[in-house]
Amino acid sequence: MNTDTRQRALDPQVLHDLVAANRILANEGVVDAYGHVSIRHPRNPDRYLIARSISPALVTAGDIMEYGLDGKPVDAASPTPYLERHIHGAIYEKRPDVQAVVHSHAVPVLPFTLTDVPLQAVIHVASDMGAVIPRWDIRDSFGDTNLLVVDMDQGRDLAETLGSNKVVLMRGHGFTATGRSLIEVVKISVYLPVNAQVQLEASRLGPMRPLSPGEIEIRSQVAPDAPQMRRAWDYWCRRAGISPEVSAGD
Amino acid sequence: MNTDTRQRALDPQVLHDLVAANRILANEGVVDAYGHVSIRHPRNPDRYLIARSISPALVTAGDIMEYGLDGKPVDAASPTPYLERHIHGAIYEKRPDVQAVVHSHAVPVLPFTLTDVPLQAVIHVASDMGAVIPRWDIRDSFGDTNLLVVDMDQGRDLAETLGSNKVVLMRGHGFTATGRSLIEVVKISVYLPVNAQVQLEASRLGPMRPLSPGEIEIRSQVAPDAPQMRRAWDYWCRRAGISPEVSAGD
Amino acid sequence: MNTDTRQRALDPQVLHDLVAANRILANEGVVDAYGHVSIRHPRNPDRYLIARSISPALVTAGDIMEYGLDGKPVDAASPTPYLERHIHGAIYEKRPDVQAVVHSHAVPVLPFTLTDVPLQAVIHVASDMGAVIPRWDIRDSFGDTNLLVVDMDQGRDLAETLGSNKVVLMRGHGFTATGRSLIEVVKISVYLPVNAQVQLEASRLGPMRPLSPGEIEIRSQVAPDAPQMRRAWDYWCRRAGISPEVSAGD
Amino acid sequence: MNTDTRQRALDPQVLHDLVAANRILANEGVVDAYGHVSIRHPRNPDRYLIARSISPALVTAGDIMEYGLDGKPVDAASPTPYLERHIHGAIYEKRPDVQAVVHSHAVPVLPFTLTDVPLQAVIHVASDMGAVIPRWDIRDSFGDTNLLVVDMDQGRDLAETLGSNKVVLMRGHGFTATGRSLIEVVKISVYLPVNAQVQLEASRLGPMRPLSPGEIEIRSQVAPDAPQMRRAWDYWCRRAGISPEVSAGD
Repeated sequence: MNTDTRQRALDPQVLHDLVAANRILANEGVVDAYGHVSIRHPRNPDRYLIARSISPALVTAGDIMEYGLDGKPVDAASPTPYLERHIHGAIYEKRPDVQAVVHSHAVPVLPFTLTDVPLQAVIHVASDMGAVIPRWDIRDSFGDTNLLVVDMDQGRDLAETLGSNKVVLMRGHGFTATGRSLIEVVKISVYLPVNAQVQLEASRLGPMRPLSPGEIEIRSQVAPDAPQMRRAWDYWCRRAGISPEVSAGD
Repeated sequence: MNTDTRQRALDPQVLHDLVAANRILANEGVVDAYGHVSIRHPRNPDRYLIARSISPALVTAGDIMEYGLDGKPVDAASPTPYLERHIHGAIYEKRPDVQAVVHSHAVPVLPFTLTDVPLQAVIHVASDMGAVIPRWDIRDSFGDTNLLVVDMDQGRDLAETLGSNKVVLMRGHGFTATGRSLIEVVKISVYLPVNAQVQLEASRLGPMRPLSPGEIEIRSQVAPDAPQMRRAWDYWCRRAGISPEVSAGD
Repeated sequence: MNTDTRQRALDPQVLHDLVAANRILANEGVVDAYGHVSIRHPRNPDRYLIARSISPALVTAGDIMEYGLDGKPVDAASPTPYLERHIHGAIYEKRPDVQAVVHSHAVPVLPFTLTDVPLQAVIHVASDMGAVIPRWDIRDSFGDTNLLVVDMDQGRDLAETLGSNKVVLMRGHGFTATGRSLIEVVKISVYLPVNAQVQLEASRLGPMRPLSPGEIEIRSQVAPDAPQMRRAWDYWCRRAGISPEVSAGD
Repeated sequence: MNTDTRQRALDPQVLHDLVAANRILANEGVVDAYGHVSIRHPRNPDRYLIARSISPALVTAGDIMEYGLDGKPVDAASPTPYLERHIHGAIYEKRPDVQAVVHSHAVPVLPFTLTDVPLQAVIHVASDMGAVIPRWDIRDSFGDTNLLVVDMDQGRDLAETLGSNKVVLMRGHGFTATGRSLIEVVKISVYLPVNAQVQLEASRLGPMRPLSPGEIEIRSQVAPDAPQMRRAWDYWCRRAGISPEVSAGD
């Protein structure tokens, strides 16, 4: 209802997809009260779209705001933003290939942020997480903090550790995932916790066979909008109680 | 609504049961966005019935398609099929006794696909899984792939490893189960993940007593349509919000 | 609706409570497609009341049947009974103090049926399970079977192992719990799996302090119909979508 | 509907928030049939508000009662109180800074009440639990009991062990958490079980890096009514099906 002119100019389906991504991530348990998802602005690579400070389960189109990569709202009259939006801006700044970002505290991933055991792709549906998942500890560069990524310095430090990978773990905090598309980053974010849980359980049984680098590479060649990606999106929308298609009333 | 003539000729209850199986497997967490269930055509053993490429939770009667065992659609104008339908065709081809097949990525089973610890029947409700559960690794015959079973060569290789058993594990991917009836394969698929979880937890406590081969054999003599099988089916239908009986409006 | 004369003569609240117990146990995940709950007939200690062969989630008053302790239906025209009703009859026969029995396959308890680690009361809400939980293996007296308790010989053997305790584990199968009242046996059945899970998780951390025999004894002195018991029953009814009180329409 | 004069005099939003806290804690799985939450009376620090003996999921405004710190009801005609209300009174007596208290049996915390491994803050959202979590065993001062805190002597003994910390574990029973505000104690109670689960799982992988004392201290400087606290409250209310705002009809 308080959608501004800039947003109205966007393809309504783009906004709707971002709302759907918020609802999906909440419904699948990837985010709870906290966590967020953004997309790079489809026509202006120096901007990104993300909700105002609100839990993802509650996001509607009117909550989507537009920011410069430095985290400044395009519309000065914007409501309270997420404190940690700099995670998103710093990654879009460093990685022109990234079109969407998710930040999450998903529980099954957290043990891997606390120890030295590398999280690695062991199940095929999680292969999009990539072969290497670096771990970032905010304490290494910034000493004692509240653990939140609250400015561009911290965001850039995180993006530096992410490097050219798809996902970065954050010690005692969660993970940040990137995608070539919104569907891709949602899929990574849904299956990363599953992969973490499977790896943890398998580690009780004995040595395990992860995906090989070759397998990960071959799987990464699937287009991020292939039919099997779309099938999952439709399913997650249905479960979250939101239509995949924007409707006139939205 | 786009049910073709061939399907209309089928007993509507048969189609309805296959739809119900899709919904049950989704509702019980055996399949998610991915996974599928098929039956051999009741009157033509050289064909099988399976949904078009769609998540099992969303399947309706109009989505059920008919394929030859080689995976070619009987109706050339069919919509996009599951890439991995060859799992089904190759098993029906090799195993005339098999009437229904489920392919699943159920999470509690996945750790056993990654390690050398054999998954074995430890709880009586899972005895239909059989005494031996072989493990198949697509890498052994095909090297680096995307892990999907995308042609008949791969399907036949999987069926070869399955042999005369009820279930085969697939490394980093999931499992495929077979049944003498649709109810039986659904029951196996529901309780295999439970059995895996119980075995994994028990392995923390110490040496365990699995079902004996004699117990598994005696239990396998229950007819696949015994009242206690039907009782479970009715319960699963109710939970999934679908009637066990086809109605005029279906 | 097909409630017979004998049942009509019962206090309708008694029948309603037994229906509610079925729904509670299903809703709290203690039973699934399988499992059952009975009460001793309030006016005839040589009989017990239990549903016909149907999943507990689906039980209504018309499904409740009356059996002699030997498992013979009082009404010869009864529908298909539970195969394993002899668990109930044999325990009522041996234990005049027992007024209600639950048989369950609850998953967190199953690992303890497979190994030699004793399940013991570690959390106060589970103290009603008692200080000693024996383990019964049908194979010890009957060799290879289908693991079901299908006649009075097997039921009596199980009751013998139960002895004067509250709960008996059944290898690869589940547990049977007894109560001085229906509320008590439901409470035991709800918290036994929780206790099992807590004990299993604590065993990872190191040596643990279970409840002392004195604590268990003091706690057992709470009347089985104390207000704090009733509070839980009301809560479980609400969650299961059934009123604690029988209504005129029932 | 049976709200008495004293309660009517309270700001209706205060009562509504306490009702909402009950519903949130039940919906998030922190309390079940048992457990309770209280606030210190906003205008009379010698009193506290807590529900009558009823499961938190079922609490409405009319169930909220007022007690002196000694556990005596202000209104002599009060309904049955929680047996364990002395947990609350004794803590309010000893700790003038505490404005709200939660008592819970949350399952993931219980293993840490049974062993000597210290529960410690490992994830940032749980930092409000503080750097030290003492463990209280009622047996140390009172020998064999029913484990319930049923009088002021026992409550004061618990409060003594709590000391100046935020949370105290209770052996074989659960935990009690304190807050500078109702939102704070609810947040602690929601994330303490998550932290416990993450710590337990991480302990399987190897040595872990908990939050540092400095990080916990910095995070504790967030005002207990900061926007990010409110965001979570709104989300939990929505999930629990209760409006964050009191309405005319309440």
